[in-house]
Amino acid sequence: MIGYMGNKDDVLRRLGRAEGQVRGIARMVEQDTYCIDVLTQVAAATKALESVALALLDDHLAHCVAEAATVGGEVAEEKLREASQAIARLVRS
Amino acid sequence: MIGYMGNKDDVLRRLGRAEGQVRGIARMVEQDTYCIDVLTQVAAATKALESVALALLDDHLAHCVAEAATVGGEVAEEKLREASQAIARLVRS
Amino acid sequence: MIGYMGNKDDVLRRLGRAEGQVRGIARMVEQDTYCIDVLTQVAAATKALESVALALLDDHLAHCVAEAATVGGEVAEEKLREASQAIARLVRS
Amino acid sequence: MIGYMGNKDDVLRRLGRAEGQVRGIARMVEQDTYCIDVLTQVAAATKALESVALALLDDHLAHCVAEAATVGGEVAEEKLREASQAIARLVRS
Repeated sequence: MIGYMGNKDDVLRRLGRAEGQVRGIARMVEQDTYCIDVLTQVAAATKALESVALALLDDHLAHCVAEAATVGGEVAEEKLREASQAIARLVRS
Repeated sequence: MIGYMGNKDDVLRRLGRAEGQVRGIARMVEQDTYCIDVLTQVAAATKALESVALALLDDHLAHCVAEAATVGGEVAEEKLREASQAIARLVRS
Repeated sequence: MIGYMGNKDDVLRRLGRAEGQVRGIARMVEQDTYCIDVLTQVAAATKALESVALALLDDHLAHCVAEAATVGGEVAEEKLREASQAIARLVRS
Repeated sequence: MIGYMGNKDDVLRRLGRAEGQVRGIARMVEQDTYCIDVLTQVAAATKALESVALALLDDHLAHCVAEAATVGGEVAEEKLREASQAIARLVRS
Protein backbone atom coordinates (compact mmCIF):
# COMPACT_ATOMS: atom_id res chain seq x y z
CA MET A 1 0.00 0.00 0.00
CA ILE A 2 1.24 3.47 -0.92
CA GLY A 3 0.20 6.18 1.52
CA TYR A 4 0.85 9.13 -0.82
CA MET A 5 -1.30 7.68 -3.65
CA GLY A 6 -3.96 10.36 -3.34
CA ASN A 7 -1.34 13.15 -3.22
CA LYS A 8 1.11 11.87 -5.81
CA ASP A 9 0.81 14.89 -8.12
CA ASP A 10 1.31 17.28 -5.22
CA VAL A 11 4.37 15.35 -3.96
CA LEU A 12 5.88 15.33 -7.47
CA ARG A 13 5.22 19.05 -7.87
CA ARG A 14 6.98 19.81 -4.56
CA LEU A 15 9.92 17.56 -5.48
CA GLY A 16 10.21 19.27 -8.88
CA ARG A 17 10.31 22.63 -7.12
CA ALA A 18 12.97 21.42 -4.64
CA GLU A 19 15.06 20.09 -7.54
CA GLY A 20 14.77 23.49 -9.23
CA GLN A 21 15.87 25.19 -6.01
CA VAL A 22 19.00 23.03 -5.80
CA ARG A 23 19.79 23.70 -9.47
CA GLY A 24 19.30 27.43 -8.81
CA ILE A 25 21.80 27.26 -5.93
CA ALA A 26 24.39 25.64 -8.24
CA ARG A 27 23.85 28.50 -10.70
CA MET A 28 24.37 31.02 -7.88
CA VAL A 29 27.67 29.34 -7.00
CA GLU A 30 28.76 29.34 -10.65
CA GLN A 31 28.13 33.07 -10.75
CA ASP A 32 30.13 33.68 -7.53
CA THR A 33 27.09 34.82 -5.54
CA TYR A 34 27.87 36.06 -2.02
CA CYS A 35 28.13 33.15 0.50
CA ILE A 36 25.34 34.34 2.77
CA ASP A 37 22.87 34.59 -0.12
CA VAL A 38 23.78 31.07 -1.22
CA LEU A 39 23.33 29.84 2.37
CA THR A 40 19.88 31.42 2.59
CA GLN A 41 18.80 29.43 -0.47
CA VAL A 42 20.31 26.19 0.86
CA ALA A 43 18.31 26.65 4.09
CA ALA A 44 15.15 27.25 2.00
CA ALA A 45 15.73 24.10 -0.09
CA THR A 46 16.34 22.09 3.11
CA LYS A 47 13.06 23.34 4.55
CA ALA A 48 11.25 22.47 1.28
CA LEU A 49 12.54 18.88 1.47
CA GLU A 50 11.51 18.67 5.13
CA SER A 51 7.99 19.72 4.15
CA VAL A 52 7.86 16.96 1.54
CA ALA A 53 8.99 14.49 4.20
CA LEU A 54 6.32 15.67 6.66
CA ALA A 55 3.62 15.37 3.97
CA LEU A 56 4.77 11.84 3.06
CA LEU A 57 4.80 10.90 6.73
CA ASP A 58 1.28 12.24 7.27
CA ASP A 59 -0.02 10.14 4.41
CA HIS A 60 1.90 7.12 5.65
CA LEU A 61 0.44 7.39 9.16
CA ALA A 62 -3.07 8.08 7.87
CA HIS A 63 -3.07 5.13 5.47
CA CYS A 64 -0.41 2.45 5.99
CA VAL A 65 -0.03 2.74 9.79
CA ALA A 66 -3.74 3.28 10.45
CA GLU A 67 -4.64 0.26 8.30
CA ALA A 68 -2.05 -1.92 10.02
CA ALA A 69 -3.44 -0.80 13.40
CA THR A 70 -6.88 -2.17 12.52
CA VAL A 71 -5.22 -5.51 11.66
CA GLY A 72 -3.22 -5.40 14.90
CA GLY A 73 -0.63 -7.91 16.08
CA GLU A 74 2.77 -8.18 14.47
CA VAL A 75 1.75 -6.34 11.30
CA ALA A 76 0.84 -3.28 13.37
CA GLU A 77 3.99 -3.50 15.49
CA GLU A 78 6.22 -3.74 12.43
CA LYS A 79 4.59 -0.68 10.81
CA LEU A 80 4.90 1.31 14.03
CA ARG A 81 8.57 0.40 14.43
CA GLU A 82 9.23 1.46 10.83
CA ALA A 83 7.37 4.74 11.29
CA SER A 84 9.26 5.50 14.52
CA GLN A 85 12.58 4.98 12.82
CA ALA A 86 11.57 7.20 9.90
CA ILE A 87 10.50 9.95 12.32
CA ALA A 88 13.79 9.66 14.25
CA ARG A 89 15.76 9.99 11.00
CA LEU A 90 13.84 13.16 10.15
CA VAL A 91 14.20 14.71 13.60
CA ARG A 92 17.94 14.03 13.56
CA SER A 93 18.57 15.10 9.94
CA MET B 1 -5.48 7.48 27.44
CA ILE B 2 -1.81 8.03 28.23
CA GLY B 3 0.58 6.42 25.76
CA TYR B 4 3.66 6.53 28.02
CA MET B 5 1.93 4.77 30.93
CA GLY B 6 4.03 1.63 30.64
CA ASN B 7 7.27 3.64 30.37
CA LYS B 8 6.57 6.37 32.92
CA ASP B 9 9.55 5.54 35.15
CA ASP B 10 11.89 5.49 32.19
CA VAL B 11 10.56 8.84 30.89
CA LEU B 12 10.95 10.40 34.34
CA ARG B 13 14.48 9.05 34.67
CA ARG B 14 15.46 10.55 31.31
CA LEU B 15 13.86 13.89 32.19
CA GLY B 16 15.68 13.90 35.54
CA ARG B 17 18.95 13.31 33.71
CA ALA B 18 18.21 16.10 31.18
CA GLU B 19 17.40 18.47 34.04
CA GLY B 20 20.72 17.56 35.67
CA GLN B 21 22.51 18.23 32.38
CA VAL B 22 20.99 21.72 32.13
CA ARG B 23 21.92 22.45 35.75
CA GLY B 24 25.45 21.23 35.02
CA ILE B 25 25.68 23.64 32.07
CA ALA B 26 24.68 26.54 34.34
CA ARG B 27 27.45 25.52 36.75
CA MET B 28 29.93 25.47 33.85
CA VAL B 29 28.90 29.00 32.91
CA GLU B 30 29.23 30.17 36.53
CA GLN B 31 32.77 28.81 36.55
CA ASP B 32 33.66 30.57 33.27
CA THR B 33 34.12 27.34 31.34
CA TYR B 34 35.38 27.78 27.78
CA CYS B 35 32.50 28.55 25.33
CA ILE B 36 33.07 25.52 23.10
CA ASP B 37 32.92 23.12 26.06
CA VAL B 38 29.67 24.72 27.21
CA LEU B 39 28.27 24.44 23.67
CA THR B 40 29.15 20.74 23.51
CA GLN B 41 27.08 20.14 26.64
CA VAL B 42 24.16 22.22 25.34
CA ALA B 43 24.12 20.10 22.16
CA ALA B 44 24.16 16.93 24.33
CA ALA B 45 21.24 18.17 26.48
CA THR B 46 19.29 19.08 23.32
CA LYS B 47 19.86 15.58 21.94
CA ALA B 48 18.73 14.07 25.28
CA LEU B 49 15.46 16.03 25.13
CA GLU B 50 14.95 14.98 21.52
CA SER B 51 15.32 11.35 22.57
CA VAL B 52 12.66 11.82 25.26
CA ALA B 53 10.38 13.34 22.62
CA LEU B 54 10.94 10.43 20.21
CA ALA B 55 10.20 7.93 22.99
CA LEU B 56 6.99 9.75 23.95
CA LEU B 57 5.97 9.88 20.30
CA ASP B 58 6.58 6.15 19.84
CA ASP B 59 4.35 5.36 22.79
CA HIS B 60 1.73 7.81 21.56
CA LEU B 61 1.61 6.23 18.09
CA ALA B 62 1.64 2.69 19.48
CA HIS B 63 -1.19 3.33 21.93
CA CYS B 64 -3.31 6.45 21.40
CA VAL B 65 -3.07 6.67 17.59
CA ALA B 66 -3.28 2.91 17.03
CA GLU B 67 -6.35 2.68 19.26
CA ALA B 68 -8.04 5.61 17.52
CA ALA B 69 -7.31 3.95 14.16
CA THR B 70 -9.30 0.86 15.17
CA VAL B 71 -12.21 3.16 16.06
CA GLY B 72 -11.82 5.03 12.77
CA GLY B 73 -13.82 8.02 11.59
CA GLU B 74 -13.36 11.46 13.08
CA VAL B 75 -11.66 10.17 16.24
CA ALA B 76 -8.90 8.63 14.13
CA GLU B 77 -8.56 11.70 11.92
CA GLU B 78 -8.26 14.02 14.91
CA LYS B 79 -5.55 11.84 16.51
CA LEU B 80 -3.63 11.68 13.23
CA ARG B 81 -3.80 15.44 12.75
CA GLU B 82 -2.53 15.98 16.30
CA ALA B 83 0.31 13.49 15.82
CA SER B 84 1.32 15.11 12.51
CA GLN B 85 1.51 18.51 14.13
CA ALA B 86 3.58 17.16 17.03
CA ILE B 87 6.00 15.52 14.57
CA ALA B 88 6.29 18.74 12.55
CA ARG B 89 7.11 20.69 15.74
CA LEU B 90 9.86 18.20 16.56
CA VAL B 91 11.35 18.18 13.06
CA ARG B 92 11.40 21.98 13.02
CA SER B 93 12.70 22.46 16.57
CA MET C 1 39.07 34.06 26.95
CA ILE C 2 35.36 33.62 27.62
CA GLY C 3 33.07 34.95 24.88
CA TYR C 4 29.89 35.07 26.99
CA MET C 5 31.52 37.16 29.77
CA GLY C 6 29.42 40.25 29.02
CA ASN C 7 26.20 38.20 28.86
CA LYS C 8 26.79 35.77 31.71
CA ASP C 9 23.72 36.83 33.71
CA ASP C 10 21.50 36.54 30.66
CA VAL C 11 22.88 33.08 29.80
CA LEU C 12 22.34 31.90 33.39
CA ARG C 13 18.81 33.28 33.41
CA ARG C 14 17.95 31.42 30.19
CA LEU C 15 19.49 28.20 31.51
CA GLY C 16 17.54 28.54 34.76
CA ARG C 17 14.38 28.92 32.73
CA ALA C 18 15.19 25.88 30.57
CA GLU C 19 15.88 23.84 33.71
CA GLY C 20 12.50 24.92 35.09
CA GLN C 21 10.86 23.88 31.81
CA VAL C 22 12.37 20.39 32.01
CA ARG C 23 11.28 20.08 35.66
CA GLY C 24 7.79 21.19 34.63
CA ILE C 25 7.70 18.47 31.97
CA ALA C 26 8.58 15.84 34.60
CA ARG C 27 5.72 17.12 36.74
CA MET C 28 3.36 16.84 33.75
CA VAL C 29 4.42 13.22 33.27
CA GLU C 30 3.94 12.47 36.98
CA GLN C 31 0.39 13.81 36.67
CA ASP C 32 -0.34 11.69 33.56
CA THR C 33 -0.74 14.68 31.27
CA TYR C 34 -1.82 13.84 27.73
CA CYS C 35 1.15 12.82 25.51
CA ILE C 36 0.70 15.59 22.94
CA ASP C 37 0.73 18.30 25.62
CA VAL C 38 3.92 16.83 27.09
CA LEU C 39 5.47 16.72 23.60
CA THR C 40 4.62 20.38 22.99
CA GLN C 41 6.54 21.34 26.12
CA VAL C 42 9.50 19.12 25.20
CA ALA C 43 9.69 20.89 21.81
CA ALA C 44 9.55 24.26 23.60
CA ALA C 45 12.38 23.29 25.98
CA THR C 46 14.46 22.03 23.05
CA LYS C 47 13.98 25.35 21.27
CA ALA C 48 14.95 27.23 24.44
CA LEU C 49 18.22 25.27 24.66
CA GLU C 50 18.90 25.92 20.98
CA SER C 51 18.49 29.65 21.60
CA VAL C 52 21.02 29.48 24.44
CA ALA C 53 23.41 27.69 22.09
CA LEU C 54 22.96 30.30 19.35
CA ALA C 55 23.58 33.12 21.87
CA LEU C 56 26.75 31.42 23.17
CA LEU C 57 27.93 30.86 19.60
CA ASP C 58 27.35 34.53 18.69
CA ASP C 59 29.44 35.65 21.65
CA HIS C 60 32.11 33.09 20.81
CA LEU C 61 32.39 34.26 17.19
CA ALA C 62 32.31 37.94 18.16
CA HIS C 63 35.02 37.59 20.81
CA CYS C 64 37.14 34.42 20.71
CA VAL C 65 37.09 33.79 16.95
CA ALA C 66 37.32 37.47 15.97
CA GLU C 67 40.29 37.96 18.31
CA ALA C 68 42.05 34.87 16.99
CA ALA C 69 41.47 36.14 13.43
CA THR C 70 43.42 39.32 14.17
CA VAL C 71 46.32 37.16 15.43
CA GLY C 72 46.06 34.91 12.35
CA GLY C 73 48.10 31.81 11.60
CA GLU C 74 47.57 28.57 13.46
CA VAL C 75 45.74 30.20 16.38
CA ALA C 76 43.08 31.48 14.00
CA GLU C 77 42.85 28.17 12.12
CA GLU C 78 42.41 26.22 15.35
CA LYS C 79 39.62 28.53 16.57
CA LEU C 80 37.84 28.32 13.22
CA ARG C 81 38.04 24.53 13.17
CA GLU C 82 36.61 24.40 16.69
CA ALA C 83 33.78 26.80 15.82
CA SER C 84 32.92 24.81 12.66
CA GLN C 85 32.65 21.62 14.66
CA ALA C 86 30.46 23.28 17.28
CA ILE C 87 28.15 24.64 14.54
CA ALA C 88 27.94 21.20 12.89
CA ARG C 89 26.99 19.62 16.24
CA LEU C 90 24.20 22.18 16.66
CA VAL C 91 22.87 21.80 13.11
CA ARG C 92 22.83 18.02 13.50
CA SER C 93 21.40 17.96 17.03
CA MET D 1 34.79 38.46 -1.45
CA ILE D 2 33.61 34.90 -2.00
CA GLY D 3 34.53 32.46 0.78
CA TYR D 4 33.98 29.27 -1.23
CA MET D 5 36.26 30.39 -4.10
CA GLY D 6 38.90 27.76 -3.37
CA ASN D 7 36.29 24.99 -3.06
CA LYS D 8 33.95 25.97 -5.88
CA ASP D 9 34.32 22.71 -7.82
CA ASP D 10 33.69 20.67 -4.70
CA VAL D 11 30.58 22.72 -3.80
CA LEU D 12 29.22 22.33 -7.35
CA ARG D 13 29.89 18.60 -7.31
CA ARG D 14 27.99 18.21 -4.01
CA LEU D 15 25.09 20.31 -5.29
CA GLY D 16 24.95 18.25 -8.48
CA ARG D 17 24.77 15.11 -6.39
CA ALA D 18 22.00 16.58 -4.17
CA GLU D 19 20.04 17.57 -7.29
CA GLY D 20 20.40 14.00 -8.58
CA GLN D 21 19.16 12.68 -5.23
CA VAL D 22 16.03 14.84 -5.40
CA ARG D 23 15.39 13.74 -9.01
CA GLY D 24 15.83 10.13 -7.91
CA ILE D 25 13.22 10.64 -5.19
CA ALA D 26 10.74 11.95 -7.76
CA ARG D 27 11.39 8.84 -9.87
CA MET D 28 10.73 6.65 -6.80
CA VAL D 29 7.40 8.43 -6.26
CA GLU D 30 6.46 8.00 -9.94
CA GLN D 31 7.09 4.27 -9.56
CA ASP D 32 4.94 4.04 -6.39
CA THR D 33 7.88 3.14 -4.16
CA TYR D 34 6.95 2.31 -0.56
CA CYS D 35 6.59 5.49 1.60
CA ILE D 36 9.27 4.55 4.11
CA ASP D 37 11.86 3.98 1.37
CA VAL D 38 11.02 7.36 -0.15
CA LEU D 39 11.32 8.99 3.29
CA THR D 40 14.76 7.45 3.84
CA GLN D 41 15.98 9.07 0.62
CA VAL D 42 14.42 12.43 1.52
CA ALA D 43 16.27 12.35 4.86
CA ALA D 44 19.52 11.52 2.99
CA ALA D 45 19.04 14.43 0.55
CA THR D 46 18.30 16.78 3.45
CA LYS D 47 21.52 15.70 5.17
CA ALA D 48 23.45 16.22 1.92
CA LEU D 49 22.17 19.79 1.64
CA GLU D 50 23.05 20.43 5.30
CA SER D 51 26.60 19.28 4.60
CA VAL D 52 26.84 21.73 1.69
CA ALA D 53 25.60 24.48 4.01
CA LEU D 54 28.17 23.60 6.69
CA ALA D 55 30.97 23.60 4.11
CA LEU D 56 29.88 27.00 2.76
CA LEU D 57 29.68 28.35 6.30
CA ASP D 58 33.19 27.09 7.14
CA ASP D 59 34.60 28.84 4.11
CA HIS D 60 32.63 31.98 4.91
CA LEU D 61 33.94 32.12 8.49
CA ALA D 62 37.51 31.30 7.45
CA HIS D 63 37.61 33.96 4.73
CA CYS D 64 34.93 36.66 4.83
CA VAL D 65 34.40 36.82 8.60
CA ALA D 66 38.09 36.36 9.50
CA GLU D 67 39.07 39.12 7.06
CA ALA D 68 36.41 41.47 8.41
CA ALA D 69 37.64 40.75 11.96
CA THR D 70 41.13 42.02 11.10
CA VAL D 71 39.54 45.24 9.79
CA GLY D 72 37.37 45.51 12.92
CA GLY D 73 34.73 48.14 13.68
CA GLU D 74 31.41 48.18 11.91
CA VAL D 75 32.57 46.00 9.02
CA ALA D 76 33.37 43.19 11.45
CA GLU D 77 30.14 43.66 13.40
CA GLU D 78 28.05 43.54 10.24
CA LYS D 79 29.76 40.32 9.05
CA LEU D 80 29.29 38.69 12.46
CA ARG D 81 25.62 39.63 12.58
CA GLU D 82 25.11 38.18 9.10
CA ALA D 83 26.93 34.96 10.00
CA SER D 84 24.91 34.57 13.22
CA GLN D 85 21.66 34.88 11.32
CA ALA D 86 22.79 32.34 8.72
CA ILE D 87 23.76 29.89 11.48
CA ALA D 88 20.39 30.39 13.23
CA ARG D 89 18.57 29.68 9.94
CA LEU D 90 20.51 26.44 9.54
CA VAL D 91 19.98 25.29 13.14
CA ARG D 92 16.26 25.99 12.85
CA SER D 93 15.81 24.49 9.37
